[in-house]
Amino acid sequence: MQIESVDFFYLSMPEVLDIGDGSQDSLLVRLQAGNHVGWGECEAAPLVSIASLVCPMSHSACKPIQDSVLGQRLDSTDDIVRIGNLVRESGLDLLQTDHTLSGIDIAMWDLLGHRFQVPVYQLLGYQYAYPKTPYASVLFGDTPEQTLEKGRQMRRQGYRAGKFGWGNFGRSTVQSDIEQVRAAREGLGEDGILLIDAGTVWIDDVEPAKLRLEVLKECGVTWLEEPFISGGFSAYHQLAKLAHPVRLAGGEGANNYYLAQHMIDYADIGFVQIDAGRIGGISVAKQVVDYAQARGITYVNHTFTSHLALSASLQPYAGTEQDNLCEYPVEPKPLALEMTLDHLLPDKDGKIRLPDKPGLGISPDLEAVATYLVDIEIKVGGQCLYQTPLL
Amino acid sequence: MQIESVDFFYLSMPEVLDIGDGSQDSLLVRLQAGNHVGWGECEAAPLVSIASLVCPMSHSACKPIQDSVLGQRLDSTDDIVRIGNLVRESGLDLLQTDHTLSGIDIAMWDLLGHRFQVPVYQLLGYQYAYPKTPYASVLFGDTPEQTLEKGRQMRRQGYRAGKFGWGNFGRSTVQSDIEQVRAAREGLGEDGILLIDAGTVWIDDVEPAKLRLEVLKECGVTWLEEPFISGGFSAYHQLAKLAHPVRLAGGEGANNYYLAQHMIDYADIGFVQIDAGRIGGISVAKQVVDYAQARGITYVNHTFTSHLALSASLQPYAGTEQDNLCEYPVEPKPLALEMTLDHLLPDKDGKIRLPDKPGLGISPDLEAVATYLVDIEIKVGGQCLYQTPLL
Repeated sequence: MQIESVDFFYLSMPEVLDIGDGSQDSLLVRLQAGNHVGWGECEAAPLVSIASLVCPMSHSACKPIQDSVLGQRLDSTDDIVRIGNLVRESGLDLLQTDHTLSGIDIAMWDLLGHRFQVPVYQLLGYQYAYPKTPYASVLFGDTPEQTLEKGRQMRRQGYRAGKFGWGNFGRSTVQSDIEQVRAAREGLGEDGILLIDAGTVWIDDVEPAKLRLEVLKECGVTWLEEPFISGGFSAYHQLAKLAHPVRLAGGEGANNYYLAQHMIDYADIGFVQIDAGRIGGISVAKQVVDYAQARGITYVNHTFTSHLALSASLQPYAGTEQDNLCEYPVEPKPLALEMTLDHLLPDKDGKIRLPDKPGLGISPDLEAVATYLVDIEIKVGGQCLYQTPLL
Repeated sequence: MQIESVDFFYLSMPEVLDIGDGSQDSLLVRLQAGNHVGWGECEAAPLVSIASLVCPMSHSACKPIQDSVLGQRLDSTDDIVRIGNLVRESGLDLLQTDHTLSGIDIAMWDLLGHRFQVPVYQLLGYQYAYPKTPYASVLFGDTPEQTLEKGRQMRRQGYRAGKFGWGNFGRSTVQSDIEQVRAAREGLGEDGILLIDAGTVWIDDVEPAKLRLEVLKECGVTWLEEPFISGGFSAYHQLAKLAHPVRLAGGEGANNYYLAQHMIDYADIGFVQIDAGRIGGISVAKQVVDYAQARGITYVNHTFTSHLALSASLQPYAGTEQDNLCEYPVEPKPLALEMTLDHLLPDKDGKIRLPDKPGLGISPDLEAVATYLVDIEIKVGGQCLYQTPLL
């Protein structure tokens, strides 16, 4: 069968706030081939990814992404790999390419799962999807008191692991950060798995990061996430040596296989965190799972958006038992919850299990989607290249 | 003074061909602050960069780029660095950011040069702009005979260095490539500096690259450029050891300082090639010059577009005498030549010299620009976010 259409839908909360919360908008992808439909999602900046789907060609290595997707044969997972390679080759000089490809790749896996009536993780070669321990992922409170309360709430909700990040962490005084981390530990309890996310605040400067290591060790933090931007290998490497037994985590910014590989090889991270909505989709995420496994590095998903994106991010490592944590957004905006009919809720034992359903096992709620839909029109030289498609 | 406006102009040839020629369109950038105007240019995919300039915010690390530029103070080169950092921080999850920033950064340098009435290279701290030996940069001919003729033409035009690339190189048989390289050498003459560009054709596969090493050595090729994509460090590293005395060149795909740094540190390249229109502008390119110099790596510009882009790409290494080659596009489309009033033509001795004029020393030809201007309109939720500005 051939890919007949690839449609992008820009969804947004009525008001988008200037906070580190990625669940405020979404780019939903619908792919049609034969009588089958697959759904995917791209991370962040929907308008820019839409532009990369339809933009006029600049030259042979800078083509609109839809040109490498529409009309392509899609009968097997090999076709997904082939189409991904074609998109990357034809979009080499178009920086946005990998983010845009991500949603398309996810939709292709979902579609083939529906066609063959198997979950995506089985298409990836896994027999079984191991349950994962979700960590509640929240922003630091504005005050240690608020952070303490957030930690207690996590615990009441049954989470055994929690991650606190962004907010003012790293932007205020060392003392303020010490109080925030201690409050997080107290709220989560002594036996909780505590994770801290610095949100790249120190760019590539090791010194301010060093000043926070003591409290991380004191509070038994499992990982310090993204002290630096994804490219700051040398800073990561230096800090990793000093941080033991706290491990560094990173990789969410990786927009291709190589960057993730290099973070493992050169940045000395202990946990590699991959967003399937950024790295080029499920296909590339699975490549990173395999590479991490071969090197004894723990793989974790990065997800801050919908349960469609959550399922897509869990499939690539569903079958690796040792990678037993998963990021689970607990404070999403209504858009991110309402846009799907299905949700991945913690089981009685507090674990997250992938649905035993075809594809991603998550269907969009088209009525809800319609209420968040943003109308887009892009005209080039008087010709309309993109108009929000019919749902 | 404050930045009052940043305007993007999408220029295109009436017909864009499916060939590896980046001079077929252009994104011209105009920046206004006080009574001064600066001009810049972004590489490739103009519509996508325009979308990233004006897109609605997704969250605190994914804002439209204009929000980090408009209204900012611009009185010194420190302000350029500060604005660049702000754009990167606020555009962290917007993959297109660095390409878009590039044109804005270039325009900021041009503007300050006009304000202080000095060339950009002097703002960068250089006393003197050393002349560079241009290499004519052309596509391989479809046949060895065409390649031979292209080489002879280069020689007749006075070029002492020439680069042949893309076309069918690496995509056909080894024998065909051998004949192409020999034809290039014969056409350019025994004393010419011969450079070969594989255009990332082998992705990250060392084996097919190995099969071409013998003819590169036989023909005294100075560098083999981009055998692999920018992230294929391990493949680069393996090939570099086998290729001696031929050196590897790469880096044009680098869209930030770190990627260029890592190519020097881990990919074992001998020449680092930076496109100021992609890496984040003149500011980031200059950082790479300094890093390359400290490590004994030769810096070269990458430019395949207009003479505005060419001047911008030469300023960062104008003052490093040992970096004595420069890429010089000799087959640009009319758009790329006509869009500026000034041109950087080889001197009597065949060298390229930067103009001793304020800023980039290259003024756009607004009448010609108008003839290539493509009308763009982007509407989001019924509101027009972008319409081609008045020239």
